Amino acid sequence: MAYLFDDTICALATATGGAMATIRVSGSQAITITDALFVSPTGHRLVDARSHTAHYGTLQGDDGEVLDDVVVTVMRGPHSYTGEDTTEVSCHGSRYIITLILHALIEKGCRQALPGEFTQRAFLNGKLDLSQAEAVADLISATNSATHKMALSQLRGNFSHELGVLRDELLRLTSLLELELDFSDHEDLEFADRSELMDIAQSTEQRIRQLAHSFETGNALRQGIAVAIIGKTNVGKSTLLNRLLHDDKAIVSDIHGTTRDVIEDTTQIHGITFRFIDTAGIRATTDTVEQLGIERTYKKLDEATIVLWLTDAPPSAEEAEEIAQRTEGKKVIAIVNKTDLASAPYDPTTTLPHAEGQAPIPVVRISAKHDTDLTVLEDALYHAADIPEVTQNDVIVTNARHYEALVNAHADIEAVINGLHNGLSGDLLSEDLRSAINHLATIVGGDITPDETLGNIFSHFCVGK
Amino acid sequence: MAYLFDDTICALATATGGAMATIRVSGSQAITITDALFVSPTGHRLVDARSHTAHYGTLQGDDGEVLDDVVVTVMRGPHSYTGEDTTEVSCHGSRYIITLILHALIEKGCRQALPGEFTQRAFLNGKLDLSQAEAVADLISATNSATHKMALSQLRGNFSHELGVLRDELLRLTSLLELELDFSDHEDLEFADRSELMDIAQSTEQRIRQLAHSFETGNALRQGIAVAIIGKTNVGKSTLLNRLLHDDKAIVSDIHGTTRDVIEDTTQIHGITFRFIDTAGIRATTDTVEQLGIERTYKKLDEATIVLWLTDAPPSAEEAEEIAQRTEGKKVIAIVNKTDLASAPYDPTTTLPHAEGQAPIPVVRISAKHDTDLTVLEDALYHAADIPEVTQNDVIVTNARHYEALVNAHADIEAVINGLHNGLSGDLLSEDLRSAINHLATIVGGDITPDETLGNIFSHFCVGK
Repeated sequence: MAYLFDDTICALATATGGAMATIRVSGSQAITITDALFVSPTGHRLVDARSHTAHYGTLQGDDGEVLDDVVVTVMRGPHSYTGEDTTEVSCHGSRYIITLILHALIEKGCRQALPGEFTQRAFLNGKLDLSQAEAVADLISATNSATHKMALSQLRGNFSHELGVLRDELLRLTSLLELELDFSDHEDLEFADRSELMDIAQSTEQRIRQLAHSFETGNALRQGIAVAIIGKTNVGKSTLLNRLLHDDKAIVSDIHGTTRDVIEDTTQIHGITFRFIDTAGIRATTDTVEQLGIERTYKKLDEATIVLWLTDAPPSAEEAEEIAQRTEGKKVIAIVNKTDLASAPYDPTTTLPHAEGQAPIPVVRISAKHDTDLTVLEDALYHAADIPEVTQNDVIVTNARHYEALVNAHADIEAVINGLHNGLSGDLLSEDLRSAINHLATIVGGDITPDETLGNIFSHFCVGK
Repeated sequence: MAYLFDDTICALATATGGAMATIRVSGSQAITITDALFVSPTGHRLVDARSHTAHYGTLQGDDGEVLDDVVVTVMRGPHSYTGEDTTEVSCHGSRYIITLILHALIEKGCRQALPGEFTQRAFLNGKLDLSQAEAVADLISATNSATHKMALSQLRGNFSHELGVLRDELLRLTSLLELELDFSDHEDLEFADRSELMDIAQSTEQRIRQLAHSFETGNALRQGIAVAIIGKTNVGKSTLLNRLLHDDKAIVSDIHGTTRDVIEDTTQIHGITFRFIDTAGIRATTDTVEQLGIERTYKKLDEATIVLWLTDAPPSAEEAEEIAQRTEGKKVIAIVNKTDLASAPYDPTTTLPHAEGQAPIPVVRISAKHDTDLTVLEDALYHAADIPEVTQNDVIVTNARHYEALVNAHADIEAVINGLHNGLSGDLLSEDLRSAINHLATIVGGDITPDETLGNIFSHFCVGK
């Protein structure tokens, strides 16, 4: 392992720009180095401090110049986040002061921490498994109730626990196969065992399939559910979008450094993120060039899970049918805008005539002028998203790396089931079982996790975590 | 006083967007309220915690839903920043989580803190005087060595101490005047006292004058020394400005919420901020309209302390004289740019011929292509700024409110001196003395500080400090 445990790392853990900031120091020399800069008004020293105590004083350079008035919290390993000796320096939020303190710490022997290096140390010291470490980054970038709950559930080890149960089942299967090999002359015994083997294999396959399947929900919740607004150019698409966005876009934009993708227009409805895809206006035309532009819009619809089809008059059955054909497999909500004067409230059972074999298209009547109508549309969107309520105990896969491992493990366990069906020998089945166990093990990680995997995971963290 | 001491306040103390964030809670219920949300894995409670201890656990809502994994530091009054019971909740940096926690605290009885309210409580609880409280805001917005040292000096009470000494002197003067009144029949005694009175008054006057005068330096250091670059349009003004700015502008722009004024182009040279004023190009012209533009540029020069006069050839004595007349009272540095090929290094004694009674104009030869030449210009700028080296023990007035109070106190003490000269009676002199003492007292504040003054001061703080 290229990882250096001997050095002591430091980094700003909070953002700059606030009244206060926190600098975190971790490693065998963390307390000694911080103490070399620390001067307490009562004369006591950090090296003598008990774990989990906070100390007011100043940090001073070698020339006696004061860097700042600070409170230093001392946490001794293994009872710290990283498992190492740790200090947290709470100082004033001036970037100038933060730089002074970091420079002073580095001069005394610290090294500037790499992104995610504190969490990486926590993982390497056995404080967290790899899926929990990944949940830390997810928690920091959580922007809504669902992503928050999923990240917390993962951080608190619900997913790890589930994987542990699956691992135990697969190990039990392995033991039974070994038992079978030992008694392979007794034909009767073999058959008895194999039905139990099949039961275990099938229930494991089912659970792995469920977990892999949950990635669809997890990914939608994490990335946001893609929504396209289509309609003619003057029916009020932009107004509708602005109404739906409220101030949420600004709030999301405020989160620097945590969101790793370009921020699109997103809004939160009942704790779920909806992500709006930009599409050009659509109108019936015989113009070939314009028709091409419309085709391009229909193509962009591919990304969308939900399509909001905005009109300023109830659409005809023909129009509805064309839209239905263009949006196959997607959930479509037809919105009749500009109904300020007389309109019935939204009735979820109201649908347009629809092509045979297609889902019915619900119609929502709104006016961008009336916020009550917008709520109806929001409810319809939430309804169309059809996301199950997430609780903090639910295990939902949100990470593509985990999903890939589950898919691989699932293929292995399916091979085991086929092998059982086809009367394959125990040692051949064992090989697939080992592979399944190994794939699941990559999720929680361990000594065997390659540096490259760790690099990929932690380089996406922010510095200071 | 409209100030509510009974309620418990909470606010985010760090910025959002980092790996971690700190929420500060202060007031009589701070520990009880935080404890109502806190669940420790070992079952211990914050209400039982000793002061200055840190506690790992989770914050949970009434429904048992986990808000976040946190470390809570408990500090009991009066041994806290505010002097009240305080908790600091260190949580993950997600804005969503921060909002959840603040909402939960408010639901349990906290109130969102106003800007500067923690520091205001520290002042009202006697932990800091008013000038020290103001230094906290200065410290947070410190962007260079000089502003950092001045703010720390003020925060550490050097200015307050100096004011205390002055106050004692003025009180001694008052006592001596009272003594004089008691013995007012003995003419001889009166005269003996008055020469001692005059000595004290004059030394006090001198010190107050020095302090008031230091505001010139303090203000220049805090606001940055205004520099104008003038010259013909194609001599390389923009290139020079970009070279001088390095990346410093970006660094300054990073500091959200602390800088209260619009950020201009600034750079740090040897720990001092220089602020560049935008001016249009100047060239010799007979065109009336263009001449008007040039007049406007000369007018903008009024703001500048230092003028960089950029040319691409050594200027003639006539040109130098015109510039010298246009920039009266300012420090001018003539810069000859584009001297890549052959040029002597900067010699500080090199000056242009100059008008009688004017300061000589030094000439610096640079090439924007060579960074070594830029260093020479930076040295010349630093030299021209003529700012004394600031140490952490220097008392330099940086605050317009303090300056005004000193100017008023100075007028009072001058009246006392005049009164002594003119043989004014003791009771008349006492009145001016009282006024001087009161003006100095407004700087450190106290029970007598009007709410309006406090409002003015603390409303400029950031929330969470």
